[in-house]
Amino acid sequence: MMQKLLVREWLKDNRARGARLLQKLVQEDSTRGKESIAQAIVIEKCRQLGLELDIWEIGQASLFEHPAFFSDRKDFKGNPNLVAVLKGEGGGKSIILNGHIDVVPPGDYQTWKDDPFSGHIQGGRLFGRGTTDMKGGNVALLFAMESLIANKIKLKGDVIFQSVIEEESGGAGTLAAVLRGYKADGAIIPEPTNMKLFPKQQGSMWFRISVKGKGAHGGTRYEGVSAIEKMMLVIQSLLQLEKDRNARISDPLYKSIPIPIPINIGKIQSGEWPSSVPDIATIEGRMGVAPDEIMENAQKDMEDCLKALCQQDSWFKEHSPTIEWFGGRWLPGSVENDHPLMECLTQGFIEVKHQPPIIEASPWGTDGGILSSVSNTPVVVFGPGVTEVAHHSNEYIVLEDMFAAAEIIAYCLLDWCGVAE
Amino acid sequence: MMQKLLVREWLKDNRARGARLLQKLVQEDSTRGKESIAQAIVIEKCRQLGLELDIWEIGQASLFEHPAFFSDRKDFKGNPNLVAVLKGEGGGKSIILNGHIDVVPPGDYQTWKDDPFSGHIQGGRLFGRGTTDMKGGNVALLFAMESLIANKIKLKGDVIFQSVIEEESGGAGTLAAVLRGYKADGAIIPEPTNMKLFPKQQGSMWFRISVKGKGAHGGTRYEGVSAIEKMMLVIQSLLQLEKDRNARISDPLYKSIPIPIPINIGKIQSGEWPSSVPDIATIEGRMGVAPDEIMENAQKDMEDCLKALCQQDSWFKEHSPTIEWFGGRWLPGSVENDHPLMECLTQGFIEVKHQPPIIEASPWGTDGGILSSVSNTPVVVFGPGVTEVAHHSNEYIVLEDMFAAAEIIAYCLLDWCGVAE
Repeated sequence: MMQKLLVREWLKDNRARGARLLQKLVQEDSTRGKESIAQAIVIEKCRQLGLELDIWEIGQASLFEHPAFFSDRKDFKGNPNLVAVLKGEGGGKSIILNGHIDVVPPGDYQTWKDDPFSGHIQGGRLFGRGTTDMKGGNVALLFAMESLIANKIKLKGDVIFQSVIEEESGGAGTLAAVLRGYKADGAIIPEPTNMKLFPKQQGSMWFRISVKGKGAHGGTRYEGVSAIEKMMLVIQSLLQLEKDRNARISDPLYKSIPIPIPINIGKIQSGEWPSSVPDIATIEGRMGVAPDEIMENAQKDMEDCLKALCQQDSWFKEHSPTIEWFGGRWLPGSVENDHPLMECLTQGFIEVKHQPPIIEASPWGTDGGILSSVSNTPVVVFGPGVTEVAHHSNEYIVLEDMFAAAEIIAYCLLDWCGVAE
Repeated sequence: MMQKLLVREWLKDNRARGARLLQKLVQEDSTRGKESIAQAIVIEKCRQLGLELDIWEIGQASLFEHPAFFSDRKDFKGNPNLVAVLKGEGGGKSIILNGHIDVVPPGDYQTWKDDPFSGHIQGGRLFGRGTTDMKGGNVALLFAMESLIANKIKLKGDVIFQSVIEEESGGAGTLAAVLRGYKADGAIIPEPTNMKLFPKQQGSMWFRISVKGKGAHGGTRYEGVSAIEKMMLVIQSLLQLEKDRNARISDPLYKSIPIPIPINIGKIQSGEWPSSVPDIATIEGRMGVAPDEIMENAQKDMEDCLKALCQQDSWFKEHSPTIEWFGGRWLPGSVENDHPLMECLTQGFIEVKHQPPIIEASPWGTDGGILSSVSNTPVVVFGPGVTEVAHHSNEYIVLEDMFAAAEIIAYCLLDWCGVAE
């Protein structure tokens, strides 16, 4: 196909510009509530491409009232969502290209070799928070579209590019785009899959568990009950629950994943004075939900686990731990392995990489769950980022992969949406 | 002795005033850095008693440079120390009466039945943070002195009353008083001993241990190393170390103490995002030091324990936990069981309570370690507070005990300092 050659050549000629765009995006810290400057760069890029822009602050009543809405925020002012449409000529299938602009906090700065927002390039890698998760994927989407536009290739179906906020905190940005009426015949989300195709996506949700202790002077600590020691029992129970839940996973797509649906304890906090026995401890974490699992059943698993602990421990019998499901919540989702969008991406992959793609199930939740379960849009997650460094210090992306992903996605757009006369 | 009868009668007649003074002191939150208002009440009381006042802001260079100084503060402005002297007529032994005005934070408000600073009285108990540790003890000291002054009894030796800051954070207030030149032939510190006599005092010091993990996305948490899980190994090792150290304690004074020299873990902090693997975890705690133990040897015990852990765990072999001795540090101290001050207090106790006192070793450090090791002043810790509720929620003191302690201490002043013609 003539157009694919043009796309390939254009992408080859524009690598420096692509790397520079990613660099600019990474150099703007877009952690939660600070997305606006990075988003403005994306908006300006889409304006230059001549796309139809829809820029709005999310937070309408319909969003807050939706059952799939989970957030601890009361408003989302100052950091808009963006949808930018490359209108088709008609008669083809439409597609959503979805990426989030928010990034997680950089963590301990001392574990970063460089400033977390440096955008430093070395040995073909671009470094910084958000390179892999997922500004590199977003640049792949933008460059896939630009490679068509620059070559004056017209598609039949619409391409609906979405740059959303709040993915890392529960998906309110994508949900708002769905509620604004955007849907399509398929969707690609270039989260960091190491160039693998993920037809199935793990769901997940956040939990907060608190346990009580009994305060005392540290010098007579035997007169108190340490909330930290009690919390250690809870953590041990959760590790066992994780084992039990993962033993039930039989989907072959998960065969090379050590823990398909992990229970991650991300935070712990207890005590306010070195020489007092702490009287309350709190953990916060993320529970993975299998693609075919109902969220409520997963919650019940954890709640039952805590109830069982109360039966075994005399302190907990009187002072049971409390659990709260708060903030982030990502619905699981799946398409069949032979869904037409999977075939289309597989074909593009083979044309670019001269080998078949690896197909696995996603080890983490994405906004794909909202697209598939709320707007019934089939989703494949496929992106150039390096899974292992997402949410890590010294996060990076391999620029070569970013451009290969752009080419594969561009090929897929040609095939999926169809080329107009 | 005629004077003892006068003291007894006066104390009986002035209970309501004593309870009211304690109430006023408790109603002023004097947690660290906020001691000034409660201290002002003590200063005014001492002024009314006609004592020689010495009020000063601690923090001279000699304090910061002293080997026994431990604090994380750079200055102590705004919250003065007080020494108030009841000058003797000469020819008697002098005594220091030392109490701290600072209190520990109230902890979780929800575990308090009443406001932590209510000063509420019910069933002969006065409730609130600091009642037991140790404003009730301070009132016992002030009332012991007032019972003599009100009855125009003159002593031979000096009584040096000290109301110090910073006891809960390492004793900089008492050290500053020592460096200002105050010393005596003996000292009583009315920390909450449940009316027991403590000739020996446990020392203690604060530690901070940090462990590194490796950050990762919670959905692929097997690619990271959880600093929380690693810290659990450290905590288990510290619990074992506590067992080993306490197995070595053979002093019969400790026979009824379940854990003579505890290792208390008072704080834990790790992680900043529920769905990230935490890459650093920190605990802070208090290590008890036996009365006859050298501080540095206790430190070495804990450092060796961490080194042993590094040998057993492959992650720690490459990323050893770090330990820091910071902030609070209380020297241990002891006098012989038959020291004249012990005999003097025992005699007073028998006269007031008609039974011999219980003699034990202190389960916690006090400022007595500084008095004995820096200014060579023999110290007995004896006070009316309830050991079990120090640093607890719903802290209280039994008012009856506060007045009994005042009487015993007043008797001891008469005998120790001697009555002038």
